[in-house]
Amino acid sequence: MKDQRKIAGVSEEEIINVIRESLTLPKKEKQATKELVNEAYVVSTTKYNLSTEKLSEENKAAHQELLEGYAKALNEISAALDTADRDAANPNNSVFRSLKIDETHNLNATFLHAMFFENISDLRSTLSMDSLTHMRLERDWGSFDAWQRDFIACALSSRNGWVVTVYNVFLKRYMNVVVDLHSSGIPFSSIPIVVIDCWEHSYYRDYLKDRRSYVFTMMKELKWSTIEERIRKVERMIEASK
Amino acid sequence: MKDQRKIAGVSEEEIINVIRESLTLPKKEKQATKELVNEAYVVSTTKYNLSTEKLSEENKAAHQELLEGYAKALNEISAALDTADRDAANPNNSVFRSLKIDETHNLNATFLHAMFFENISDLRSTLSMDSLTHMRLERDWGSFDAWQRDFIACALSSRNGWVVTVYNVFLKRYMNVVVDLHSSGIPFSSIPIVVIDCWEHSYYRDYLKDRRSYVFTMMKELKWSTIEERIRKVERMIEASK
Amino acid sequence: MKDQRKIAGVSEEEIINVIRESLTLPKKEKQATKELVNEAYVVSTTKYNLSTEKLSEENKAAHQELLEGYAKALNEISAALDTADRDAANPNNSVFRSLKIDETHNLNATFLHAMFFENISDLRSTLSMDSLTHMRLERDWGSFDAWQRDFIACALSSRNGWVVTVYNVFLKRYMNVVVDLHSSGIPFSSIPIVVIDCWEHSYYRDYLKDRRSYVFTMMKELKWSTIEERIRKVERMIEASK
Amino acid sequence: MKDQRKIAGVSEEEIINVIRESLTLPKKEKQATKELVNEAYVVSTTKYNLSTEKLSEENKAAHQELLEGYAKALNEISAALDTADRDAANPNNSVFRSLKIDETHNLNATFLHAMFFENISDLRSTLSMDSLTHMRLERDWGSFDAWQRDFIACALSSRNGWVVTVYNVFLKRYMNVVVDLHSSGIPFSSIPIVVIDCWEHSYYRDYLKDRRSYVFTMMKELKWSTIEERIRKVERMIEASK
Repeated sequence: MKDQRKIAGVSEEEIINVIRESLTLPKKEKQATKELVNEAYVVSTTKYNLSTEKLSEENKAAHQELLEGYAKALNEISAALDTADRDAANPNNSVFRSLKIDETHNLNATFLHAMFFENISDLRSTLSMDSLTHMRLERDWGSFDAWQRDFIACALSSRNGWVVTVYNVFLKRYMNVVVDLHSSGIPFSSIPIVVIDCWEHSYYRDYLKDRRSYVFTMMKELKWSTIEERIRKVERMIEASK
Repeated sequence: MKDQRKIAGVSEEEIINVIRESLTLPKKEKQATKELVNEAYVVSTTKYNLSTEKLSEENKAAHQELLEGYAKALNEISAALDTADRDAANPNNSVFRSLKIDETHNLNATFLHAMFFENISDLRSTLSMDSLTHMRLERDWGSFDAWQRDFIACALSSRNGWVVTVYNVFLKRYMNVVVDLHSSGIPFSSIPIVVIDCWEHSYYRDYLKDRRSYVFTMMKELKWSTIEERIRKVERMIEASK
Repeated sequence: MKDQRKIAGVSEEEIINVIRESLTLPKKEKQATKELVNEAYVVSTTKYNLSTEKLSEENKAAHQELLEGYAKALNEISAALDTADRDAANPNNSVFRSLKIDETHNLNATFLHAMFFENISDLRSTLSMDSLTHMRLERDWGSFDAWQRDFIACALSSRNGWVVTVYNVFLKRYMNVVVDLHSSGIPFSSIPIVVIDCWEHSYYRDYLKDRRSYVFTMMKELKWSTIEERIRKVERMIEASK
Repeated sequence: MKDQRKIAGVSEEEIINVIRESLTLPKKEKQATKELVNEAYVVSTTKYNLSTEKLSEENKAAHQELLEGYAKALNEISAALDTADRDAANPNNSVFRSLKIDETHNLNATFLHAMFFENISDLRSTLSMDSLTHMRLERDWGSFDAWQRDFIACALSSRNGWVVTVYNVFLKRYMNVVVDLHSSGIPFSSIPIVVIDCWEHSYYRDYLKDRRSYVFTMMKELKWSTIEERIRKVERMIEASK
C-alpha cells in the first residue's frame, strides 16, 4: 500500500529501504508489476505534401515512407520496452540495452524528419531582419552570414546524418551540431530550430553526390516563419527557466 | 553595409541572393570576416568537495581533475572553431569536422560531470512523496519503483557512459537514456534531471567491476532537493512553451 | 648512436632505458627525427568500368568518384600523420587522434569500395558446387542457402554501411559482418571475401529505398571467380599460419 | 534436393533461381531448416596468472573475470544467432541486427583481452635488434623509437579502448590502430601483433587517471618472444598469400 512507503520526512535508513525494496522483490511479484514499467508511448505521423520542385516526387514519396517506418519502429520498441526484462540488463548482450539504443535511434529519426519536412519547401521563403531569428543568429555568430557559413560547413561535415541549429541550454546560446547517422554526436539539452537532413537518401536521387547543391537549394526554401515560431517558443522557455 | 541586404519583404530571388552572397564572397573578404565566426564561448568549472564517504578521496580528486580537463579541452576547441576553415569542411578528412565532433564530446563531458557532482553525495537524501519529482516519475513510469528499476537497468546497460533521466520535449515525458561514452545515443531535446556517471573511472577505484553496488550507493545519496529544482525549472519551461 | 642501445641480451633495466630514452629526448631533437615517424604510404585507385546494367551510368560514375575521393583523403591523412605532433596526443582534443580515426574511416572506405567493384557486375556469374567457395560456405553455415540467407539479413541490417563475408582468424571460420558507416562494428583479424556496399549512395539513385532488390540484384551478378581467388589465397594463409 | 540445384555450368537464369529459391521458401519450410543457419561456435577461456607486480592482485582478478564475462556473452550470442529470425532483419529495430552488433563487440573483447594478457607481464622482457619484430617495426616506422612514440600516442588517444599494432593486409605494412570501446575504428584485414588494453578498467585501480604511467609500465614488460611468434606467423601468411 502506498501509505506504507511514505517517503517525506523519513530517515536515511528508510530511504535506503525504499530503494532496496524494489530490488529484492521476489521474482513473481516483479512479474506482476511489469505492466507498470515504462508506460509505453505511441507516436503518430503526418502526411507531408512538400510543394518544392527541387526534389523529385519519387524522392519525396520515399522520404515520407522512411518517416513512417521510423515511427512504426519507435512504437514497436516502446511497446517492447514496456515489458523487457530489466533484471538481465548488462552492457554486453542484453535485449533491454539493444532496445534502449534503438529507441534513441528511431526517436531522433522520427522527430528530426518531421521537423525537417516542416521547415523546408517554402517557395516564398523570407526572413525579416527584425525577426527574432535574425537577431539571435546575429548575436551568437556575429552575423547572419557567419551562421550560414557555419551551418553549411556542418552540413558538409556530417557522415550520413544531420545538420541542426539548436538552442543549447548548457551554453545558453544557439549552436550548430553535426550528427552522424541519427544519434551520434548530440549535445544534451539541445532544442532543434533549423533542421536539414544530410543522409544520402535525402539527395542522392536528385543530386547524386553533390550534397552542396542540395543543401543550398534546401536553404533557399527554408520556412523561416516556422523557424521563427520555434525560436519564440524556445525564448519563452529560456525566460521561464530563469 | 547592412542596409543593402535588408531581407524584410524581399522577393524569393533576393533571398536567394542573400544566401548566395556569403558563398561567393571573394576569398579575401571571407578571411576578413573570420573573426566574427562562432563567437567563441568559455566555460568555467567549480571545485566540488563531495562529502560522500562511499567514494575514496583519491577517486574524488581524480574525478575533479577529469572535469577540469574536459572544460579546458572544450574551451580550446571553442577557440579553435572560431577561426577554423569552414571552406574545407567535408565528411572524410577536415579539421572543422573533427573539432565539431570533439566539441560535443567535451561539452557533454563537462556539463554531465557538473550535474552529476551536484546531484550526488547528499548524506541526508530524502524524497517526499508530495514532491513534483515523485509525482512526475510516478506519472511517467507508473510508480517510483518502476522508474528506479528502469534507471538501474539503464545504468547497468551503458558501455562506459552515463545513465540520465531526462525530460524529452518531443515525447512530452520523462525518460531514461543509456549513453555510451559521452555522445553516443542521446535523443535531441533531452534536458537532464538525474545524472549518474557510469564510466569505469567513476567506480573502478572503489568498486572494481561491481558497477551495481556503486550505482545503488550513489542512488541512496541522490540529492533530491537539487533534482526537484531541476524538475521545477523544466516544468516552468514546459508551461511557457505551450 | 645505434650501437649504444643494442637491445639483444640486455637486462630489464636497460630495456626500460630504451623505452624511456625516446620519451625524454629534448623537444628539439624530437623535431629533428620527426620525418622518420610513420613513413607515409600512398594508395592509388583503378578506374572501374562496370558492365552491369542494373546500376545507372550516373550512379556508377558517381561511385567511382567517391572511391577516388576516399583514396585522396587517405593519402592526405597519411602525409599529415607523418609529422603530426604525437606529444600532444590525448583522447579529448588532439589533431593526432582525429587523424588516426579518419585514417581508418578512409582506409576501409577505399579498400572496401575496390573489393566491391571487383566482385560484382559479372554478367555470367556462376558458382560451381565443387569450388572451394561453395565448400567453405557450406561447411561454416550448413548450406549455401543458409549463408545466403544470413548474408542478406546482414545486408538489410546495416545502418548505411556494408555487408562483408570475411574469414576470421580468431574463430577460424568464415562469418558475415554488419558494418555501420565505414568503421563501426568490425572484428579484428577479418579478411574480406564477399563485399557489398549498403550505403544509400549505392542504391538510392536506382532503387530508392528498396535495398532488398538492390542486394538481390548485386548477388545475382557476384563475380564468383574473384571470390574463389580470394578464398584460395586465404586458405593458403591459414595453412601457412599453422 | 541438392542435385536439382547443381550450380556448375548453369546459365545465368539458373543461378538466379538458386538465389531466389531460398528467398521464396514458404515460411514453414524455412522454419524447418533454421537449425542449419550459422552453425553456432563456442569459445573457451584460459586462466591467466600474470606475474607482473605493476598491477594489483584485485585488478588482475577482476580483469580475468571481465574476460570470462565477454566469452560467456559471445557464446550466448552465437547460440542466439543460430536461430535468430533473419526474415525480420532491418536497420532500425531487429533482434538479428542487435545480436550481430554485439557479436563483434564481444568477439573483439574476448580475443583482444586474451592477446593482451599473453603479451604483457614478462619480467625479463627483451627484444633483440636482430629479431624480425625489430626489423619490421624499423622498416615501417623508420626506427624502433618512432614505432614506440607512435604506439604511445595511440594509447593516449583512445577513448576507453585499445591500442594495437597490426599487420594490415591492404597496406602491406604494420600500423598502429586507435580503437574506441571494443569495435569502433578498426581497419579490415588487420591482424594484431602488440595489444595493450586502454579501457579505464585496466589501470584505474592502480594508476587512477595516469594512463601514461600505466602504458609505459606495460611496455616495459612486453613479452617480445610472444610478439615475435605472432610476427613470424604473419610473415608466413604474407608469403603464402603472394
